[in-house]
Amino acid sequence: MSTIDSTLPSPLHPPFPRPAAPIPETARTASVIRTLQLQEHIEGGYFAETDRDPLRVPNPFLASAPSQSQLRTATPRDPTDATRNASTSIFYLLTPGRPLGAWHRNRGRTVHTLHWGRGRYVIIHADEVEGGAGRARVETFVVGKDVERGERLQWVVEGGKYKASFLLEDEEGRGVSEGGLLISETVVPGFEYSDHDFLLPERLKELVTPEQAEEMAWMLRRGPPPEEHELEYKSK
Amino acid sequence: MSTIDSTLPSPLHPPFPRPAAPIPETARTASVIRTLQLQEHIEGGYFAETDRDPLRVPNPFLASAPSQSQLRTATPRDPTDATRNASTSIFYLLTPGRPLGAWHRNRGRTVHTLHWGRGRYVIIHADEVEGGAGRARVETFVVGKDVERGERLQWVVEGGKYKASFLLEDEEGRGVSEGGLLISETVVPGFEYSDHDFLLPERLKELVTPEQAEEMAWMLRRGPPPEEHELEYKSK
Repeated sequence: MSTIDSTLPSPLHPPFPRPAAPIPETARTASVIRTLQLQEHIEGGYFAETDRDPLRVPNPFLASAPSQSQLRTATPRDPTDATRNASTSIFYLLTPGRPLGAWHRNRGRTVHTLHWGRGRYVIIHADEVEGGAGRARVETFVVGKDVERGERLQWVVEGGKYKASFLLEDEEGRGVSEGGLLISETVVPGFEYSDHDFLLPERLKELVTPEQAEEMAWMLRRGPPPEEHELEYKSK
Repeated sequence: MSTIDSTLPSPLHPPFPRPAAPIPETARTASVIRTLQLQEHIEGGYFAETDRDPLRVPNPFLASAPSQSQLRTATPRDPTDATRNASTSIFYLLTPGRPLGAWHRNRGRTVHTLHWGRGRYVIIHADEVEGGAGRARVETFVVGKDVERGERLQWVVEGGKYKASFLLEDEEGRGVSEGGLLISETVVPGFEYSDHDFLLPERLKELVTPEQAEEMAWMLRRGPPPEEHELEYKSK
């Protein structure tokens, strides 16, 4: 049984055995990557930023509200940090070769929508225990086309929550969608790397039970330690 | 040939003959409507509002910027009109029974994403000739999964442009998708009916050539005259 969700018969596990060599993308996936001009994402998977709203709104993540003059003088790339783009959008793709979006969070609120494929999301509601000592609530759900069975086509993740996602096979186990799991994400207000950070192993252990931390550790970011700018969102 | 797009061999036309009696929805479509709790939209098609961001941002459509005190005291349903929700989202569905999203515009900027099905969008760039005498640029594109052939999975429509959409059969003419054309829309800043209006026949004639107006008139909203609140967005 999963320690995250008692309705799941077994613990969450990697969708594919960890290969000795990188899995090449299928022709269909390679074509999608080329056509949508996707690149590798530091979280795993592929992405392309497709839209950045020119409208600027006050940065809601500052300790104090920006002044009217700061708002008036805000430029498209605002060096004062007083404002954000009203929204930004990306395509985000998981494939058998890059099947995991590793644990991270954004300050912004993200509206996700499904184009094709099937996957699982796991959310640690860290914002609900901020400053407190309790364990954070953990939630998991499937994104896919079978809305009658509760799969989601559209899902909102509030700012301050840790999120991971991975590719799933279809319900009948016939394999993953030919084109992987392709979604759009719209972040409100718009994305900046300074509003983003990865979940570190020690923080995972603080946030959830030891059993849950063990079950979810494989979804932590691997590879070289993240660059400083990838760990900019500092508040716990 | 179409007067809108010279690459189209014939004029834009209704996707289905206008039926004598309403076309009943298929079992699949009826199930989607029930599961997603969709209702009939005044533009045509079906919709459900799924999300309204609690964050409030300054209303960018006011002639003068709101004061700091107006922003501070803004409530979830702001009677001063000084603010808007940072974003709102809906599902929007076109079906053979309700295949047309009739001409309208929003002040807000809309990010559209495709879940399934295929359709055509037509945009009149009225914002580009505001206050001027010239004709507005008209654009049309297909939304669908065949990204290699230029069909779009994600499309942004800026505020102030008139938009219409209708259901298409698949490229091979085998009929429409079993579940109709289902998309998500995220409006930034969030939707209010006071930021929305329908295109009226006389305005269409002012905006485009007589030939284009004739080709696109079938996409005008039919039925009883719109209520006052449906025509609130008054600036030409």
